[in-house]
Amino acid sequence: ELKLNLEQIEKNGYDHFMLKEIYEQPSAILDTFRGRLLSNEGIIKMSGVEDNLQKFLNAKRIIIVACGTSWHAGLVAEYLFEDLARIPVEVEYASEFRYRNPVISSEDVVIAISQSGETADTLAAIKLAKSFGAFVFGVCNVVGSSIARETDAGAYTHAGPEIGVASTKAFTTQITVLTLMALRLANAKGTMSTSEYKKFLFDLESIPNRVEEVLKSDSIVTEISEKYKGVSNCLYLGRNYNFPVALEGALKLKEISYIHAEGYPAAEMKHGPIALIDENMPVVVIATKKGHYDKIVSNIQEIKSRNGRIIAIVTKGDTTIKEMADYVVEVPETSESLTPLITTIPLQLLSYHIAVMRGCNVDQPRNLAKSVTVE
Amino acid sequence: ELKLNLEQIEKNGYDHFMLKEIYEQPSAILDTFRGRLLSNEGIIKMSGVEDNLQKFLNAKRIIIVACGTSWHAGLVAEYLFEDLARIPVEVEYASEFRYRNPVISSEDVVIAISQSGETADTLAAIKLAKSFGAFVFGVCNVVGSSIARETDAGAYTHAGPEIGVASTKAFTTQITVLTLMALRLANAKGTMSTSEYKKFLFDLESIPNRVEEVLKSDSIVTEISEKYKGVSNCLYLGRNYNFPVALEGALKLKEISYIHAEGYPAAEMKHGPIALIDENMPVVVIATKKGHYDKIVSNIQEIKSRNGRIIAIVTKGDTTIKEMADYVVEVPETSESLTPLITTIPLQLLSYHIAVMRGCNVDQPRNLAKSVTVE
Repeated sequence: ELKLNLEQIEKNGYDHFMLKEIYEQPSAILDTFRGRLLSNEGIIKMSGVEDNLQKFLNAKRIIIVACGTSWHAGLVAEYLFEDLARIPVEVEYASEFRYRNPVISSEDVVIAISQSGETADTLAAIKLAKSFGAFVFGVCNVVGSSIARETDAGAYTHAGPEIGVASTKAFTTQITVLTLMALRLANAKGTMSTSEYKKFLFDLESIPNRVEEVLKSDSIVTEISEKYKGVSNCLYLGRNYNFPVALEGALKLKEISYIHAEGYPAAEMKHGPIALIDENMPVVVIATKKGHYDKIVSNIQEIKSRNGRIIAIVTKGDTTIKEMADYVVEVPETSESLTPLITTIPLQLLSYHIAVMRGCNVDQPRNLAKSVTVE
Repeated sequence: ELKLNLEQIEKNGYDHFMLKEIYEQPSAILDTFRGRLLSNEGIIKMSGVEDNLQKFLNAKRIIIVACGTSWHAGLVAEYLFEDLARIPVEVEYASEFRYRNPVISSEDVVIAISQSGETADTLAAIKLAKSFGAFVFGVCNVVGSSIARETDAGAYTHAGPEIGVASTKAFTTQITVLTLMALRLANAKGTMSTSEYKKFLFDLESIPNRVEEVLKSDSIVTEISEKYKGVSNCLYLGRNYNFPVALEGALKLKEISYIHAEGYPAAEMKHGPIALIDENMPVVVIATKKGHYDKIVSNIQEIKSRNGRIIAIVTKGDTTIKEMADYVVEVPETSESLTPLITTIPLQLLSYHIAVMRGCNVDQPRNLAKSVTVE
């Protein structure tokens, strides 16, 4: 009984750790950039990056290794590093990378991402990369973890303990760290104008408030969850920065609701998955204004013409998609590169509510472990 | 009526174009390497590669752009080029590549893959790459197609006309062309011993016979199809060279049977999808002897302990997996790098039979076009 009470206290009044952790994201993201993001001075201070700046600037390419949700954060980082800092990036499943005889050299920088810092495949990939002489940088949440110790340098996410098996705040704080890194490198490489760079710093600084705002979509997300809780399949579509968000949204639904959800880059829909679409297959579309909006609108039209049901994540004030979609969730506007930090929130809430309504054990989903420490 | 008769003649007695095209693969693959693979002389002759050999050898990296099934062939090529020729490869969805401000330079070689040679997103990606000064090489089936004309050089797959909307022989002949290219470059770079290289040429030469052999698994695949035709979800797992085969197998089932099938690298299962597994979710596992067999065996054990149903593609004579799986399909042994050409065949047959049993229009699946010539 004491344990139960302690747990309830730790949940801070929330029904589940996952929900608590979803709501902690504004403060977790703030903690992640506290002391690192000095927007007025136009400075990003990360000692792990600063001490090894030349290694990053000389990198022929960056290879990101990770698993699961961290792999999705890596995919967002691919867009960030290439788009902002103009460094070629390759994102690898750690399990595939370590066994596939990869081409890797001392001119490569490897970034390993893991919440727990104990993921077995990621740890093995790090050791392999180091044996080839590559510089390895870790992005972990758990201080003093194996990956934090095994890497040459790194940056903690400072998200605080994550108890829910389905990762939420770990994901957004990983993206925050990776965004800071991409911005620091963009600034050092001069691939971004000073005014653009400064605008980004302020936009990033305002993300906790925007996340706070989007958390208010909880009631409409609950309504959507009520409507679709019974489905057995679901598709998630996004483009560009929001393609990895589609993958992550689908993974959340899989993990805790046991609904077969799959994420896809929106344009690939026509190369196969569109055959699945009928009135029983809801499609979640991330369709913010800046992410090739007109292309996404035409994807939505195609889905509608096949009787698909659309749940769209749109920019506040959007009217075009509102008329076509069955449901819309509005999110505040921000720089396109920062949208994953915002658009991922309603998808976390959606999976949470559906799982609760289906009677699933949200914090301890069947078959899953919090960190995969075996191969 | 005349048209119908003509169609029946063209189907050569097969019920559908797809089935005819599946069975054409031994001769299609032979046509693909005819005049190019001179195993006794230890020579690979491809003028598009030979005329531009220095460009390939100097390439900082190879970027592969494609959509759908061709994208899966590109993923197989990533393993081939990195493993055999030690050239770093990045595989991109054409639709994502063209819109995401990619880092690309005149030191990059771009390989564009498209059966029809008319895929709109792939064509646009080629134009973008050319504008950055990259050398662009096309792998198409349709002679004189837009992509064949737009690229700097290329190699045709010579698969003959593919009528079925779900691509089969186009996939295996694309992999054949890409294998020839990887072997030629490995030989030129000296990343492979002469004896290893020669063994590969003979192994490749024997692939049509091995495909012929694996086509004999049709009766067991029909039995498996009968058993699972009613499922609404399915998972496909593979590692290494057979990870893209898992994706392709799942895509086939989606396209023509409208069953929600999803492919995953086997080790990622523990990072989410394993939550889906119960007695209603059959799992197709590609588990040939050379592809990190022991890891796959432990994946199978995990699935079994969660009451999952296993359909395993195994190497002839395998006994370990036979005891654990609900069904096994045996395939002949070959070099690990060539297994995709073999393991993909029973997965094509599986999707075909299930689709026919479900009464689906195999050659003209709903919502899909043979080539996606619009964005």
